[in-house]
Amino acid sequence: MSTETRGLFDILFASEAMRKLFSDRARVQGMLDFEAALARAGADTGMIPEQAGIAIASHCRAELFDLELLANGAALAGNLAIPVIDALRNLVAQEDPPAARFVHWGATSQDAIDTGLVLQVRGALDLFDLDLARLAGALAELARTHKHVLLLGRTWLQPAPPVTFGLKAAGWLSAVQRERHRLRELRARVLVIQFGGAVGTLASLGRQGLVVATRLAEELKLAVPDLPWHTQRDRVAETAATLGLLAGSLGKIARDLSLMMQAEVAEVFEPRAPGRGASSTMPHKHNPVGAAAMLAVATRVPSLVATVLAAMPQEHERGLGGWQAEWDSLPEICLLTSGALTRAVQVIQGLEVDGARMRANVDATLGVALAEPVALALARHMDRTAAHQLLGRACERAVKERKSLRETLLREPEVTTHLSAAEIDRLCDPAAYLGLADVWIERVLESLEREQRETEG
Amino acid sequence: MSTETRGLFDILFASEAMRKLFSDRARVQGMLDFEAALARAGADTGMIPEQAGIAIASHCRAELFDLELLANGAALAGNLAIPVIDALRNLVAQEDPPAARFVHWGATSQDAIDTGLVLQVRGALDLFDLDLARLAGALAELARTHKHVLLLGRTWLQPAPPVTFGLKAAGWLSAVQRERHRLRELRARVLVIQFGGAVGTLASLGRQGLVVATRLAEELKLAVPDLPWHTQRDRVAETAATLGLLAGSLGKIARDLSLMMQAEVAEVFEPRAPGRGASSTMPHKHNPVGAAAMLAVATRVPSLVATVLAAMPQEHERGLGGWQAEWDSLPEICLLTSGALTRAVQVIQGLEVDGARMRANVDATLGVALAEPVALALARHMDRTAAHQLLGRACERAVKERKSLRETLLREPEVTTHLSAAEIDRLCDPAAYLGLADVWIERVLESLEREQRETEG
Amino acid sequence: MSTETRGLFDILFASEAMRKLFSDRARVQGMLDFEAALARAGADTGMIPEQAGIAIASHCRAELFDLELLANGAALAGNLAIPVIDALRNLVAQEDPPAARFVHWGATSQDAIDTGLVLQVRGALDLFDLDLARLAGALAELARTHKHVLLLGRTWLQPAPPVTFGLKAAGWLSAVQRERHRLRELRARVLVIQFGGAVGTLASLGRQGLVVATRLAEELKLAVPDLPWHTQRDRVAETAATLGLLAGSLGKIARDLSLMMQAEVAEVFEPRAPGRGASSTMPHKHNPVGAAAMLAVATRVPSLVATVLAAMPQEHERGLGGWQAEWDSLPEICLLTSGALTRAVQVIQGLEVDGARMRANVDATLGVALAEPVALALARHMDRTAAHQLLGRACERAVKERKSLRETLLREPEVTTHLSAAEIDRLCDPAAYLGLADVWIERVLESLEREQRETEG
Amino acid sequence: MSTETRGLFDILFASEAMRKLFSDRARVQGMLDFEAALARAGADTGMIPEQAGIAIASHCRAELFDLELLANGAALAGNLAIPVIDALRNLVAQEDPPAARFVHWGATSQDAIDTGLVLQVRGALDLFDLDLARLAGALAELARTHKHVLLLGRTWLQPAPPVTFGLKAAGWLSAVQRERHRLRELRARVLVIQFGGAVGTLASLGRQGLVVATRLAEELKLAVPDLPWHTQRDRVAETAATLGLLAGSLGKIARDLSLMMQAEVAEVFEPRAPGRGASSTMPHKHNPVGAAAMLAVATRVPSLVATVLAAMPQEHERGLGGWQAEWDSLPEICLLTSGALTRAVQVIQGLEVDGARMRANVDATLGVALAEPVALALARHMDRTAAHQLLGRACERAVKERKSLRETLLREPEVTTHLSAAEIDRLCDPAAYLGLADVWIERVLESLEREQRETEG
Repeated sequence: MSTETRGLFDILFASEAMRKLFSDRARVQGMLDFEAALARAGADTGMIPEQAGIAIASHCRAELFDLELLANGAALAGNLAIPVIDALRNLVAQEDPPAARFVHWGATSQDAIDTGLVLQVRGALDLFDLDLARLAGALAELARTHKHVLLLGRTWLQPAPPVTFGLKAAGWLSAVQRERHRLRELRARVLVIQFGGAVGTLASLGRQGLVVATRLAEELKLAVPDLPWHTQRDRVAETAATLGLLAGSLGKIARDLSLMMQAEVAEVFEPRAPGRGASSTMPHKHNPVGAAAMLAVATRVPSLVATVLAAMPQEHERGLGGWQAEWDSLPEICLLTSGALTRAVQVIQGLEVDGARMRANVDATLGVALAEPVALALARHMDRTAAHQLLGRACERAVKERKSLRETLLREPEVTTHLSAAEIDRLCDPAAYLGLADVWIERVLESLEREQRETEG
Repeated sequence: MSTETRGLFDILFASEAMRKLFSDRARVQGMLDFEAALARAGADTGMIPEQAGIAIASHCRAELFDLELLANGAALAGNLAIPVIDALRNLVAQEDPPAARFVHWGATSQDAIDTGLVLQVRGALDLFDLDLARLAGALAELARTHKHVLLLGRTWLQPAPPVTFGLKAAGWLSAVQRERHRLRELRARVLVIQFGGAVGTLASLGRQGLVVATRLAEELKLAVPDLPWHTQRDRVAETAATLGLLAGSLGKIARDLSLMMQAEVAEVFEPRAPGRGASSTMPHKHNPVGAAAMLAVATRVPSLVATVLAAMPQEHERGLGGWQAEWDSLPEICLLTSGALTRAVQVIQGLEVDGARMRANVDATLGVALAEPVALALARHMDRTAAHQLLGRACERAVKERKSLRETLLREPEVTTHLSAAEIDRLCDPAAYLGLADVWIERVLESLEREQRETEG
Repeated sequence: MSTETRGLFDILFASEAMRKLFSDRARVQGMLDFEAALARAGADTGMIPEQAGIAIASHCRAELFDLELLANGAALAGNLAIPVIDALRNLVAQEDPPAARFVHWGATSQDAIDTGLVLQVRGALDLFDLDLARLAGALAELARTHKHVLLLGRTWLQPAPPVTFGLKAAGWLSAVQRERHRLRELRARVLVIQFGGAVGTLASLGRQGLVVATRLAEELKLAVPDLPWHTQRDRVAETAATLGLLAGSLGKIARDLSLMMQAEVAEVFEPRAPGRGASSTMPHKHNPVGAAAMLAVATRVPSLVATVLAAMPQEHERGLGGWQAEWDSLPEICLLTSGALTRAVQVIQGLEVDGARMRANVDATLGVALAEPVALALARHMDRTAAHQLLGRACERAVKERKSLRETLLREPEVTTHLSAAEIDRLCDPAAYLGLADVWIERVLESLEREQRETEG
Repeated sequence: MSTETRGLFDILFASEAMRKLFSDRARVQGMLDFEAALARAGADTGMIPEQAGIAIASHCRAELFDLELLANGAALAGNLAIPVIDALRNLVAQEDPPAARFVHWGATSQDAIDTGLVLQVRGALDLFDLDLARLAGALAELARTHKHVLLLGRTWLQPAPPVTFGLKAAGWLSAVQRERHRLRELRARVLVIQFGGAVGTLASLGRQGLVVATRLAEELKLAVPDLPWHTQRDRVAETAATLGLLAGSLGKIARDLSLMMQAEVAEVFEPRAPGRGASSTMPHKHNPVGAAAMLAVATRVPSLVATVLAAMPQEHERGLGGWQAEWDSLPEICLLTSGALTRAVQVIQGLEVDGARMRANVDATLGVALAEPVALALARHMDRTAAHQLLGRACERAVKERKSLRETLLREPEVTTHLSAAEIDRLCDPAAYLGLADVWIERVLESLEREQRETEG
């Protein structure tokens, strides 16, 4: 296996912690954690000898296993649990032969594989929660600091009335908070054991299955589901889909940043570091590599979510194709989304913000983006459509003559008949046309703070 | 437009109620409901004259609008709100000219479009909840009635130890319940107004924006979000993704049914009706058209979810491409999923179940699916791997000689040394190897009943 | 059906000709064209009476059929062919009762449905070819006219050395040409009849099946495939995928245009027309609605392609779910892609190009985008890495001091030691650093012209 | 990197040869092959010193590079070429300092990355072609051997008139052949160099760019494209989509096999081998692991194709997010599809076919699947609909009374009035109702043989 590894881009697209969590070794460890807990639960409930439980649990350490052998075994058997359990049995047998036959007692391959996955997912959810807290903190800081920093609003990539950079950051923050809530809400549904034996009945444990299951779940600090879910994959798919939402919300941040970083706009920059975003040929380059990674993730994750959703209609008591399609897809989703999230933290925490340029970009529109308030003011004195069209013409003239809308309007009798110069001045002041920008920011920040207090409290 | 309609398959793939909810006319009505509520809210809060509010609201009825003109207008303007608002203004102007200028006061196109969509989504969530209740009821009935009906377990499409048909139904039911919970949980996040004006600041309403927003939300029985979400599309995407989960869980039911309906299996049948599932050439045909529609939906919806997720990174204060990609995608998801759901209700409510054939199919496996308990019993007396292999050979022999596993084992000294004939009989009785099947069924039914009590109480 | 139509956005997202081609009525007509040709082929080959052939063919006109009845029939039977054939048989029976029984002789539902689809696809391919020719012509014109118009190169959305606007157009054109070739190449594989009867053997025609098939194919000007392809869906999927490529290449054009149309860039504009891209509230607005539609299509089509690919593994001799998933998906792909294509033609033909602004944007970078040639020139005199770094520092200084790179370099002894002022001038002239831009343009144009000659010749 | 590898399932889901081709090391080697060829081309055309060309080319061996360092460098710089080129330059500098500055002369990072990818794709296409030839050979053998082996036709997973197993294999073969043709046809479009320098103009090479490009292409045995295609990604997407078609056609084979392997059907089996498809708990198990892998691939690849299509609209002269989304996606598609293909070869070559069971399954339908020919025969004597309904009733009776359709019809006066016993016997003989099954098989085999002759000739 060593000469054929693939993973050069894992560092680029996934966080280090998540790579550890979804490494081959960690996957095997997840399954071994299940086997160890099962052995302890079996011993505690008298299903298997006390000593066997100890012997088995003591060998459930992934570093004792040869990953290459396991990979070859999985290719033959069709799933990874079979070679893992075989190897575990052999290990146990070397030390305590009678204990070996109690390895995996009562369980089926999928029990180990799925519960192992749930354990990995729990680790992933913990990591996401931490990183989302850091991102929320950084975004809140941005929103607070730039609460009154004027920024051109842009709709359809065209100039619109002004906003503030704080409002933009508050919009990002609001979505990030919802993503965090979603990931917290799914824990109750998703963090359950898989334990049903061959077909979900736990038949090999007779009537003791539920007792063992309960003990097993306690060992692993997971819940016992209503019933085993070998081919009811909504929990897996829900995890995938919720991370898909997060990837999308991070992609939105990256989309905005990448557009604001264009040289012609130049309102923000990713933090600079030697070699970061360099070019092999262009010395002046400082590429937005964080935004690029985030956008790449937002391009890839939706399709992976579709794979997991498409894999849901699995056959009878164990799927043929659909289950297997999940094995790399959910980890991939966790990895990619973690990469986007840690990139987001890094970029937002170190973001260079050029407030002066933001203001300059507003002014460079000559004020035409403020046609709306003038038209609304005129509409009190004349037909609304006529006012709308009058402003439309004034904007065209302003652009053509490279004069500001304010100057243009001051020379327009149809306007000055109804509006005084002072009124026109006020209507054409972008800072006077921010509506609830500060209110919205406050609402988002307050909701974050309320939550932080509740979490601490 | 009349000669170019498309929609022949809508009846096949979508419920009638959902088609009404997402018809062109209903979409326009959703936007008009926004405009009417906005007019009333504007009047109530003194932003526009009382009389204007009445005049505007009274014209917000979709049947007054020419859909073909609106479609052409949308193609020119790039969104549907512009021609709708223009037409509304003209209608109002005919009756009450001064009122016309207060149409759409303070709002932007996307406010009307998104809030209209949220209203449609609320209707869809209501419909889904009702149909899910009906499906849950029918599945509960199935699980209860067939609690002890033996059914061959099947893993990787190969025979496995027995389950009961009640357990299979309980598995479907459990997933359906979770889908219902998910759809209920998202209401709090999703059922909010969109109201931000051109760039989200509600600047044209000065400092009164929040008052109007609050009143508007009351009118529509929606909540006011933290801040406008023109380009934060996680609510839309969450709705799409959650319906994607439902489509998948319904696809799972259809997958199982379609396999059980195979002539070689013949355990269940879709309800029969004259002409249903007929063939243009084969007189004997009775095609599973319900399952086919459900599987088609489960094939199509994941990709539509991916579209909505991929569309999330929208630009600045109004998207260019991504938002527009949602317009037909979310309705499509609602329609398709509704079709699968109503098909599921119909199929499950009328399902023909052949318990005798289920039992016969278990017996036809010659008992090899019960190799597991025998192997486990033997493993108490010999090495587990040896026992596993011994049973593997016995199964091969049984199949080759067309004898039951029981008979084969009774003639096998390696087995009879350890197990008595009575033990072998018991181990080979499928009905004695059902483990917790009934317990799981009870758990699922109890959780449904608890919930029904809570909903009623 | 009339109160529940959906299609408001069809005008926005699909061309008029394609909407006609994929209307409900046209779909029925496609199937009737198959039935008429089958009747004629049956009569010609003596399989059915001459008179029956005439009677059947004469009723194969979609306007004689009630679409609403057909839709209801399809919902019951599970496919559209059954009610169409029933209705056709009834029509024929009213006029010529003995002929009625020869309707659909030898065929199965899927034969009519698939061949009808192939006929629609042929129409679509013809339309695409025409529109691609128009688009190629418009792009060639753009490339030719702006062959020497300097444009800032942009990589990672950051300034890079200059290109020409002609080169950008040539890049678009080159892709458009390849898309056209692909769509032409698939005709030979895709434009074949579907004719196999119930299971593909044409058994009801005895040994005459191939004779009838050949005659049928001649009638329809389609080829006879190796064998029927009821569940080998690669032809359908290839059509979908190839249109997916086209949608992507058009999306690339729209992406570039949308970025160049930003007010801060302002290098091109979509053609203006009254009301086009208006805003409901902002009088100055002129939204890029063409680019938005093209990008929306490029967001939606990839997922639809995935649906068709995912639907390929269809069961045995007729699919259960997969086939049904195609029914609306391929038409949807054709419609959306046609919308993007006709929008592209319209936008490119009327594109407003501001060459002066393009040049100004190059100059506004202060020449830092030309750091590359200076570094390369210096690298002849010093270590390459040192030269690269020296230029990196010079660029930073230029930006900081708002001086051009040229001025900055002229004052930099490390540079002037090696390069004369004249050399620096030349190296800093963007027009002197265009490499093969004109050569590439010529290559693309020549290849287009060669092809046009061949097509005409 | 070593403790965090992921790839346990690569052996399960990808062929060994393809894993070598897309290993990290091979990816680096692809880029180094570009750099070596560029150095030689530069030297040959006098752009760089002869000696520099030799020195550079001699260090372009991936085993000299530290993959972990490169991975870290890529994460910082944002692409893999930058650390590779830096490392190459350092290596060269150690031996021949003056040569170092000519490393990567004239090229940009993407030139190396994309050309390296094209080289990998060429290797992949070669492998696919070989394996497709093997698969076609095995399928042809299957079709030939089982040309007359009766098999139940199945539509909508319900019994239909008979086919032969040879016909089913011929259908698979026909699709496989088309996939092979598609993959051959795209070579001309896809196997081209990427060489454009920073923005595609090759400006740093002055007017010599085309000469160097031509020489470079000769070195690599690739073609020179019309113009560089840094952000025109249709070639990459076409490769992805065409492999998506192949994955789908292989999925179709696996779908059929998995259904025929069900114990209740038992018509074919995957080749058996010790441990293959074993269960961790069920001794009798022999899971269809080949079909499962093929179906998993057919579930995963469509979404990956969607990713590559969705990534097409890349910005200006170098993409921000879209290009990066391709980096792992196309290799993933190659790997997964190779896994499905080699699994298919293995399964088809060793497929166990039970012709007796196929016949028995036909007989077990009691002949109702032959209702069609009887109805058609009766339709010569009575109204077609009446005949269709008469047969419908006869089928129901046959099934109810567990009598064959033949016996049922012989006792039905409405039938015997029109058809003699001998006629009924013949009509009810499945072997007499195979139509063109053998003809279709011949057509497919002949087309394969013709092609093989042409390839050899």
